[in-house]
Amino acid sequence: MAAAVPSCPLCSGPGGQLLWQDARCRVIRATGDDAVAFPAFYRVVWQAHVAEWSDLAEADQAHCMRVLTALERAVRRHLAPTKVNLAALGNVVPHLHWHVVARYHWDSHFPAPLWAAPQRQPDAARWQALAPALRACDADIASGVFLA
Amino acid sequence: MAAAVPSCPLCSGPGGQLLWQDARCRVIRATGDDAVAFPAFYRVVWQAHVAEWSDLAEADQAHCMRVLTALERAVRRHLAPTKVNLAALGNVVPHLHWHVVARYHWDSHFPAPLWAAPQRQPDAARWQALAPALRACDADIASGVFLA
Repeated sequence: MAAAVPSCPLCSGPGGQLLWQDARCRVIRATGDDAVAFPAFYRVVWQAHVAEWSDLAEADQAHCMRVLTALERAVRRHLAPTKVNLAALGNVVPHLHWHVVARYHWDSHFPAPLWAAPQRQPDAARWQALAPALRACDADIASGVFLA
Repeated sequence: MAAAVPSCPLCSGPGGQLLWQDARCRVIRATGDDAVAFPAFYRVVWQAHVAEWSDLAEADQAHCMRVLTALERAVRRHLAPTKVNLAALGNVVPHLHWHVVARYHWDSHFPAPLWAAPQRQPDAARWQALAPALRACDADIASGVFLA
């Protein structure tokens, strides 16, 4: 496994609320500013410090995609988003992590990417209405049920 | 295979410069506004009209990832970017397509996502210097060499 990089925030901490992990990857829910605008914002973080998707061996890619796909299915099942957004960017933190974000036609940025300029004010009441479903989604992830 | 949707731009046309395709997916290079800001902007487009990554069967996901990974490796080999950005968003066009974008520390938006506000003016001379490598990358994709 690649050596941890002390200056890397994804080597030195979970990077959000840790929900599930195995030896190769972990699922976190975003906290902080990201979670304010997009409460249903998850990440699959590769445990080893590698920068690019194509740095992974084929078996590791298959494992990561199995987790990413299961996470996307849990998000769709519990949260019924308008669209799921997947992205591995890593320009700021070049440690492989996949963003998995539930998007809604009424969210602050839709249909623009979540990193673009907002289109409208956040709808706190609609996010609040999704809170129980979000807790249920978190619970399926934390228990490992999402992988079943 | 899912039926084509006549109103979908990725069902009714290639969606950019078609470089390579098989029965299941195609590789295009972005044209238009996207290509002005980011000349090394490729996409893997699933041929059938499906919206979400997790709509694909496991064998289809494996095929799509094989193509995506090979494309990323061709981009890294020819263009040596600071970082590769991968994303499947589809908020505007909900037909599965993966963005594969070579990012450089000097590009107009780095380290911000390419959809965020620009950080600086484009550097036309540096992009121009990459043009031969971009042509060589396109040639490896068009010939299928990138999958070897």
